Amino acid sequence: MTAAMHEDERAIRDLVAAWMTATKAGDVEAVLALMTEDVVFLVTGHPPMIGKAAFAQAMRAQSAPGSPAFDGTSEIREINVAGDWASVWTKLTVTVTPPAGTPFTRSGHTLSVLRKENGRWRLARDANMLSAPEPFAGG
Amino acid sequence: MTAAMHEDERAIRDLVAAWMTATKAGDVEAVLALMTEDVVFLVTGHPPMIGKAAFAQAMRAQSAPGSPAFDGTSEIREINVAGDWASVWTKLTVTVTPPAGTPFTRSGHTLSVLRKENGRWRLARDANMLSAPEPFAGG
Repeated sequence: MTAAMHEDERAIRDLVAAWMTATKAGDVEAVLALMTEDVVFLVTGHPPMIGKAAFAQAMRAQSAPGSPAFDGTSEIREINVAGDWASVWTKLTVTVTPPAGTPFTRSGHTLSVLRKENGRWRLARDANMLSAPEPFAGG
Repeated sequence: MTAAMHEDERAIRDLVAAWMTATKAGDVEAVLALMTEDVVFLVTGHPPMIGKAAFAQAMRAQSAPGSPAFDGTSEIREINVAGDWASVWTKLTVTVTPPAGTPFTRSGHTLSVLRKENGRWRLARDANMLSAPEPFAGG
């Protein structure tokens, strides 16, 4: 592994960490800065969400007063870098706390495609396989 | 788009078509030839399936007598090629027919990472977001 690859992996780990921090803080602008203009989010049970504007709208709706609070961890399983292109596999665990209810946890894996634009890695395609509350065996 | 990119896209479309044909036919060896040794399958609600051997075992179990029959279509939404790597986004629709029951349909999106090995494209990472029977709005 070359020094440049180490540097890319470190930058991608920083991106994943920054994403979680900004998401927990409800900082829409900070999250938007981490994705490409043409980003696509694919989530089980929902139609695709295409582009930054659609993401911003959904994230702002989730931050509205009376909405559930989110907390989570993103555990990186694998990073593959190939030039200005990378794939990232994570295990995501999210705890949702309704305003007047019992917190519950969902977990699942994500597969993301990242692109390096002007020297910065950004999320370009994201597949999110978070499942319903019931836990699944194994890892 | 260069001629080489056209050629890669065509080869990847052929791979997706060959995958569906071999899957419907229950031809385990033919499907195995379309993936890398280190392939990883991520599916909502299940632990990761890692490597060809795990895939072969699962596919053979699905083909056992008395198992449901599968039919499906894979509609390519996007192919992005970057050197010897590519990402593919499809919309997958699968119809399951139990031996003594009413067929039902599941649909969802897939995001796959492909790698070119010795001039041949193969599936390396696959995220499958097929959801429960209830249809989702949009596409």
